[in-house]
Amino acid sequence: MAHFDDASILETTVSSEHVFDGLILHIDHITNRLPNGKLAAREVARHVGASAVVPVDDAGNVWLVKQFRAPIDRILLEVPAGKLDFKGEDRLLAAQRELQEETGLTAKSWTHLTDIVTTPGFSDELISLYLARDLEAGESHPDDDEFLNVVKVPLVELTAMIARGEVTDAKTICAVLLAEKAMRG
Amino acid sequence: MAHFDDASILETTVSSEHVFDGLILHIDHITNRLPNGKLAAREVARHVGASAVVPVDDAGNVWLVKQFRAPIDRILLEVPAGKLDFKGEDRLLAAQRELQEETGLTAKSWTHLTDIVTTPGFSDELISLYLARDLEAGESHPDDDEFLNVVKVPLVELTAMIARGEVTDAKTICAVLLAEKAMRG
Repeated sequence: MAHFDDASILETTVSSEHVFDGLILHIDHITNRLPNGKLAAREVARHVGASAVVPVDDAGNVWLVKQFRAPIDRILLEVPAGKLDFKGEDRLLAAQRELQEETGLTAKSWTHLTDIVTTPGFSDELISLYLARDLEAGESHPDDDEFLNVVKVPLVELTAMIARGEVTDAKTICAVLLAEKAMRG
Repeated sequence: MAHFDDASILETTVSSEHVFDGLILHIDHITNRLPNGKLAAREVARHVGASAVVPVDDAGNVWLVKQFRAPIDRILLEVPAGKLDFKGEDRLLAAQRELQEETGLTAKSWTHLTDIVTTPGFSDELISLYLARDLEAGESHPDDDEFLNVVKVPLVELTAMIARGEVTDAKTICAVLLAEKAMRG
């Protein structure tokens, strides 16, 4: 085992080819020069980014959504979240919009928990995670092709579900465990 | 806001077209029938899956790797991890292999923490997360095109770095916070 400085592991891009345009992903094949001078091919899926919210009400319940996820062919329990409308959109505004669209909730108190990169090995997706408190219920209005069920779970029960493997969505695990830490102060 | 049963949000696949083969991702465009009878297009990036490990030594240090990640054009601090060699590979064996390749460590004690889906909105990637204890140092042997630095960080400092936003990799945040909970018992 050896320790090196950051410069010894840097790659530099030599060329880039755009190879695929999908519904969500836009893929480049990049050729990078490695620290040893050799070239390596890297796949880079561009994603617009997203925001996600842990809404915790005054009774200590987290408001979650269940929705069908085609890639895993399953219904998943997740924090309210959604893609940005465009690259560079204000991430707090996107979080507020997605929370209201999916659950009908608005919130007076917002805390930025952190930003996560979901899959740095193959995509640049970055999700901003927020804690929302002082909630007020309202009318939800999901997108036309978006079917979801809203579920309320006490925060303490939700963290136990995560530990038992009953919640598998990575952004939800990150957001809920960080919200729990933030609320403990 | 309305609560529904799971059947009310299920989608069923009507047709599927394979549209892209990349270095890591293999993409299908699927047409699904929605609960309201309408059709919707879904993008599904197939990924072989991966394993990741939180190695904690007897002094309470977590062994991490820093590596350059082309999609975000940055060096990232991560738990040791790697793709499966083939679909269906034993995930514990993959975790043990990746730990040894990247850090030289072997471990006598292994605990399965959970499985995460990293991006269920567009890919099926599933990462199995493990806690490794009773570590023994050895010779690392990263892949030819893999340059990384091994870094040891006390677990208590690492969780503080996560809370401060200094660790952004989602699998690392999930794995470390769950390892901390598992070790508290």
